[in-house]
Amino acid sequence: MKRILLAVGLLGAGHCAHAQAASPLTARLDKVSLRVALGPDRRPTYSVFYGPNEVSLRQEGMVKGPKEVIKPSRLGLSFADGNGFDGPLVMVGSETKDVDETWQPVWGEVKSIRNHYQQLTVHLRQPAADGRKMDVVFRVFADGVGFRYEFPRQTRLQYFTVQDEHTEFNLPANHKAFWIPGDYDSNEYTYTTSRLSEVNTTPIEPIQQKADPKRVQTPLMLKSDDGLYVNIHEAALVNYPAMFLNVNTQTFGLSSQLVPDATGTGAKAYLQAPEHTPWRTIVVADNAPAVLASKLILNLNEPSKVAETSWIKPQKFVGVWWEMHVNRASWNYADTSNIKLAGTNWNALKNNGHHGANTANVKRYIDFAAAHHIPGVLVEGWNVGWEDWANNWKEEVFDFVTPYPDFDVDELQRYAAGKGVKLIMHHETSSSVTNYERRQDAAYRFMQQHGYDAVKTGYVGRIIPRGEHHDGQWMVNHYVRTAQRTADSRIMVDMHESVRPTGLHRTYPNWLANEAARGNEFNAWSSGNPPEHETILPFTRLMGGPMDYTPGIFQIKLDDWNPARNQCKQVHTTLAKQLALYVTMYSPLQMAADLPEAYNQHLDAFQFIEDVPVDWDDTRILAAEPGDYLTTVRKAKGKDEWYLGAITDENARQQAVKLDFLTPGQRYEAIIYADGKGADWQKNPMAYRITKQTVTSKSVLKLQLAPGGGAAVSFKPVK
Amino acid sequence: MKRILLAVGLLGAGHCAHAQAASPLTARLDKVSLRVALGPDRRPTYSVFYGPNEVSLRQEGMVKGPKEVIKPSRLGLSFADGNGFDGPLVMVGSETKDVDETWQPVWGEVKSIRNHYQQLTVHLRQPAADGRKMDVVFRVFADGVGFRYEFPRQTRLQYFTVQDEHTEFNLPANHKAFWIPGDYDSNEYTYTTSRLSEVNTTPIEPIQQKADPKRVQTPLMLKSDDGLYVNIHEAALVNYPAMFLNVNTQTFGLSSQLVPDATGTGAKAYLQAPEHTPWRTIVVADNAPAVLASKLILNLNEPSKVAETSWIKPQKFVGVWWEMHVNRASWNYADTSNIKLAGTNWNALKNNGHHGANTANVKRYIDFAAAHHIPGVLVEGWNVGWEDWANNWKEEVFDFVTPYPDFDVDELQRYAAGKGVKLIMHHETSSSVTNYERRQDAAYRFMQQHGYDAVKTGYVGRIIPRGEHHDGQWMVNHYVRTAQRTADSRIMVDMHESVRPTGLHRTYPNWLANEAARGNEFNAWSSGNPPEHETILPFTRLMGGPMDYTPGIFQIKLDDWNPARNQCKQVHTTLAKQLALYVTMYSPLQMAADLPEAYNQHLDAFQFIEDVPVDWDDTRILAAEPGDYLTTVRKAKGKDEWYLGAITDENARQQAVKLDFLTPGQRYEAIIYADGKGADWQKNPMAYRITKQTVTSKSVLKLQLAPGGGAAVSFKPVK
Repeated sequence: MKRILLAVGLLGAGHCAHAQAASPLTARLDKVSLRVALGPDRRPTYSVFYGPNEVSLRQEGMVKGPKEVIKPSRLGLSFADGNGFDGPLVMVGSETKDVDETWQPVWGEVKSIRNHYQQLTVHLRQPAADGRKMDVVFRVFADGVGFRYEFPRQTRLQYFTVQDEHTEFNLPANHKAFWIPGDYDSNEYTYTTSRLSEVNTTPIEPIQQKADPKRVQTPLMLKSDDGLYVNIHEAALVNYPAMFLNVNTQTFGLSSQLVPDATGTGAKAYLQAPEHTPWRTIVVADNAPAVLASKLILNLNEPSKVAETSWIKPQKFVGVWWEMHVNRASWNYADTSNIKLAGTNWNALKNNGHHGANTANVKRYIDFAAAHHIPGVLVEGWNVGWEDWANNWKEEVFDFVTPYPDFDVDELQRYAAGKGVKLIMHHETSSSVTNYERRQDAAYRFMQQHGYDAVKTGYVGRIIPRGEHHDGQWMVNHYVRTAQRTADSRIMVDMHESVRPTGLHRTYPNWLANEAARGNEFNAWSSGNPPEHETILPFTRLMGGPMDYTPGIFQIKLDDWNPARNQCKQVHTTLAKQLALYVTMYSPLQMAADLPEAYNQHLDAFQFIEDVPVDWDDTRILAAEPGDYLTTVRKAKGKDEWYLGAITDENARQQAVKLDFLTPGQRYEAIIYADGKGADWQKNPMAYRITKQTVTSKSVLKLQLAPGGGAAVSFKPVK
Repeated sequence: MKRILLAVGLLGAGHCAHAQAASPLTARLDKVSLRVALGPDRRPTYSVFYGPNEVSLRQEGMVKGPKEVIKPSRLGLSFADGNGFDGPLVMVGSETKDVDETWQPVWGEVKSIRNHYQQLTVHLRQPAADGRKMDVVFRVFADGVGFRYEFPRQTRLQYFTVQDEHTEFNLPANHKAFWIPGDYDSNEYTYTTSRLSEVNTTPIEPIQQKADPKRVQTPLMLKSDDGLYVNIHEAALVNYPAMFLNVNTQTFGLSSQLVPDATGTGAKAYLQAPEHTPWRTIVVADNAPAVLASKLILNLNEPSKVAETSWIKPQKFVGVWWEMHVNRASWNYADTSNIKLAGTNWNALKNNGHHGANTANVKRYIDFAAAHHIPGVLVEGWNVGWEDWANNWKEEVFDFVTPYPDFDVDELQRYAAGKGVKLIMHHETSSSVTNYERRQDAAYRFMQQHGYDAVKTGYVGRIIPRGEHHDGQWMVNHYVRTAQRTADSRIMVDMHESVRPTGLHRTYPNWLANEAARGNEFNAWSSGNPPEHETILPFTRLMGGPMDYTPGIFQIKLDDWNPARNQCKQVHTTLAKQLALYVTMYSPLQMAADLPEAYNQHLDAFQFIEDVPVDWDDTRILAAEPGDYLTTVRKAKGKDEWYLGAITDENARQQAVKLDFLTPGQRYEAIIYADGKGADWQKNPMAYRITKQTVTSKSVLKLQLAPGGGAAVSFKPVK
């Protein structure tokens, strides 16, 4: 560790600006470099560059210097008590250290992850001699920079309220951006691709409530005209609100906007020192695949807090779920509105005749899962309260322990166990989180008593505590607490409508996945997801962690399920692309989302879903461009098997895939699940063709992707 | 039941006002009568009268008509959706019925309670033919009126948000009022006695935050110049915010002000039909004792929801508590600030040497309790987190299950059980209610495992969920839910810093008491409670239910405990008055609040505390005037023993008490605990004299009360 005690700090505040300007603090790893300085106003700023350093430049005779990734940008926070770090500061000192280590995730895209960075810690103090102290800690990786604010233990700063964070990300030019509107309560939007100067959320229909027209969410994916790919997000979001970004459409500056709390005072976070903010992350690369391969966000998260992890099992599942979306069944048991949880005699209600979570129907899914080696069966709508659960801002909405009269929880426990299948619990909260929190203990005991070891939670609607937001500090703490509480009960968790993830699945490996984006389900009851959607998600939402996207829809045109109600709704991909998503959309928890009767029509195609793993030793991004295409190949955990997914947007593409990732000298059987002749997401989505080839590492596969199409390939060694 | 289908309702909206004016709806019981009418603006109004009706007047040749108690006053509510009951309404019909029944409380001031009223139900509708419907239900008792709004099940009104309640209580004159400021988060104020025209809370130092200068709290006690005593409050406050009163100092009208929620939208209550508001109560009598004897509020509450009540035990208790108030001990274990609940090694903290809740000290209280037949021992500060628990708006503040290192919970369980004493649990929440709610299950399990069957809860500070108020709907639901949850675990509960009670101890008889007013403790660390305070509380705060006032302080001057820190603090009564409070301040839960060493100096006086029951077969208010004096006598449950308490304000008084409540022909030994010669709350508070007399129902006791003094008497039959 190098320790640099800055002379400027010792000279005192009056000399800082000048001295500082002369010698900014720097850190670098490979092509990424960082400068930190006090500006003329003695506020700290940072800037980030990508490219060879000046020494290399001279040595190599290069003429062009490193590219500016982030222009000098403000750092700082203001506090509710007025005594924050938003004014002039003194740089008291700094340290750097180099770290190079590797660690093994409990599950993931790769077996082992290198954590290699140079760290620069800058010690700041308010100008008064006894002023409050704050550090900014930067970590410079080969693929980007992370930094956070840290508040050491100190007498003059114990409990404090963050009123605003002033972190800026000033971009040097009018980059292309892939963005969704800054809704503090939802991220279920399609992405808009535009120049930063064109950001305007006004025409977009809100999912919950949009804020400023120039406010967008992270992960924000950017591409510069000179070929840099930049992704801005955060890591390890704990005890702090999510960061949104206000876009200055004229200067191309981004400034952080924290989600406010319920008080209406503009307060953002209630903290107690020692404490720190989440890491602000900037991933940068000169090619798109490198962004997807980045482990920067995971590396900035803490190691697992779950000591014994053998019970955590990445898995596929089917479920009583899509049949509700396609209007073949209902979550609710009775077609009665205005139900009260307390005092209702559920046995006296009239069964509407199409309640999905009935014992016989669930057995059908268990049978299908058992026959096809799918470990899990999700059942939604099993518990009382669905008659008018949504949009009423109702606190006593579900109790999480009372099954509907036609759901025989004991019988299904016995039946599933007999078939070697696990039922997956569902806890829709209707965003009545206070209600859920006071019932969580009982709900998890109920799960343990009935053989459930995984739960899908949901947060549809407006939050209770009323006035709080899905992405505010209070809810962030709820999600993290729920990850911890489920871990304490040896329960895996998949959260829907939560804040978007920030790599916390490293710390809580039982937190398998989140929704927190616009999933496949939107195809069932909205204008749907455009064919490019799944080529953007990995560059945005998935940068923070796995998504329960619910791929695998085979019955692409939904009219066939219920023409009267589905009215030309359809999934906006081909069938083959649905298969490819199991590889391109990484998740340790993957649903085979369609109905058993849909799969039974296409068991040859279903074979890929049955075969494809959910945990991996290696991953290679073979080709990628956000909004256009993505080809990914992954090596199965502990096996010499590879699985490839290739997808395209609305344009047909040919992908020539070199198979040099395969073990040299080994022959493999490749089963290729490709778009069929004339396939087209809109006109002919279900045409697919399955072929087999024997290949080696020297082979090249030519994949033809239809408009909105894709291809999936399994490679198994030939014995 | 009489059913009156109003012609005016059938004639339609256009004719209502005229027809209505001609024939208001009425109800009456004894001297109390009610009129309900649509005003010229077709909004409903009610008025209340006290006195003989016109028929009696004529028959009896009286010249003065009934006195106006409430002048015509508005009824109505507005909703957030704009479609409320604040505009013109149609009176669709009405019904009356007469009820006369008696019921037995699980515990109380009397053995049996008569519930005798005439009920008038007025059916209202919005003017449109398919308009929403609302009923107003009035109950007229011999001692007042209660009414509430009811929303029957209907298609057009299911989920709705009450934006404001427009109930008025228009008083006919400039009454004398006993009031405290309208702080939505505290009722711990001394009372101001003033004319309504003089209400102004501005000069009063806020406990939490005051609102409008002319806003006061209920129960509001009023006295008219022509001798009427009027008390305005509410009954059965469930799923609704508390009602405050805005005083019009010129017209003497009071208008209801509900406590808002956290959203900042002014929303007050989120309701789902069928639902109703709490009862608005007006107790009226021509003498002060009748107000105190009123059971109107209890009668308007629902019967017990706790089916099996044998485990509910009214009781006295001592506790590790007052020694903290007098600065002899601390709640906290270490003198360290800035503690985090998670991750702190409590065993590594340095014991400050004066932590009250240490095993040896608790055993001292157990020994004292066992020696004096006191069933309970409260211990505050037993659990980790007190180092900086208050004023930080900190969510993770207590866990309710981790004892400090010097509190041996298992040893104390064993020791207390061996002595036949029960420890009373303490759950200070620091108003971090979300934290408490998510830990309540575990906390009550911990209690059951360690032999606790009663808990004192506390809500000091600002509420989390942030933005909510102590007296808002969300917290009201929390208190009620806590009563239910503790009942489910067979736990008795005593809530401090809660909303003031409204008779719900009838429905939840395990909810033994509340603080919810300015208790004895204020004498230890503020300007204290003036000597009149305890003569006002029964007319205000206690109208809603029992208070854990913590009487029984013998060491009146607190300097003696810690001169350096207590600085002339003292209790503002004589010692004898402290004894009298056990009778005048009814509660099934009474603390003997002082330290054992204080009691050991005065065991002769302590005998009264040891003797006095906490549950009664009968109660008589012998003399009372709010702000001046109160003499109450009560008959012990199931015994022919009587206990009398007499208290005065700052003025000395002589009370001649006729003992005609005693069983005729029976001789009793009266032990009289009176102020001693020269006693004075300020100059000589601890002078007392204990005398014995044999008395019968024909005797008259002359009690001499010192300034700020009192007297307590026990009457036991001479065998």
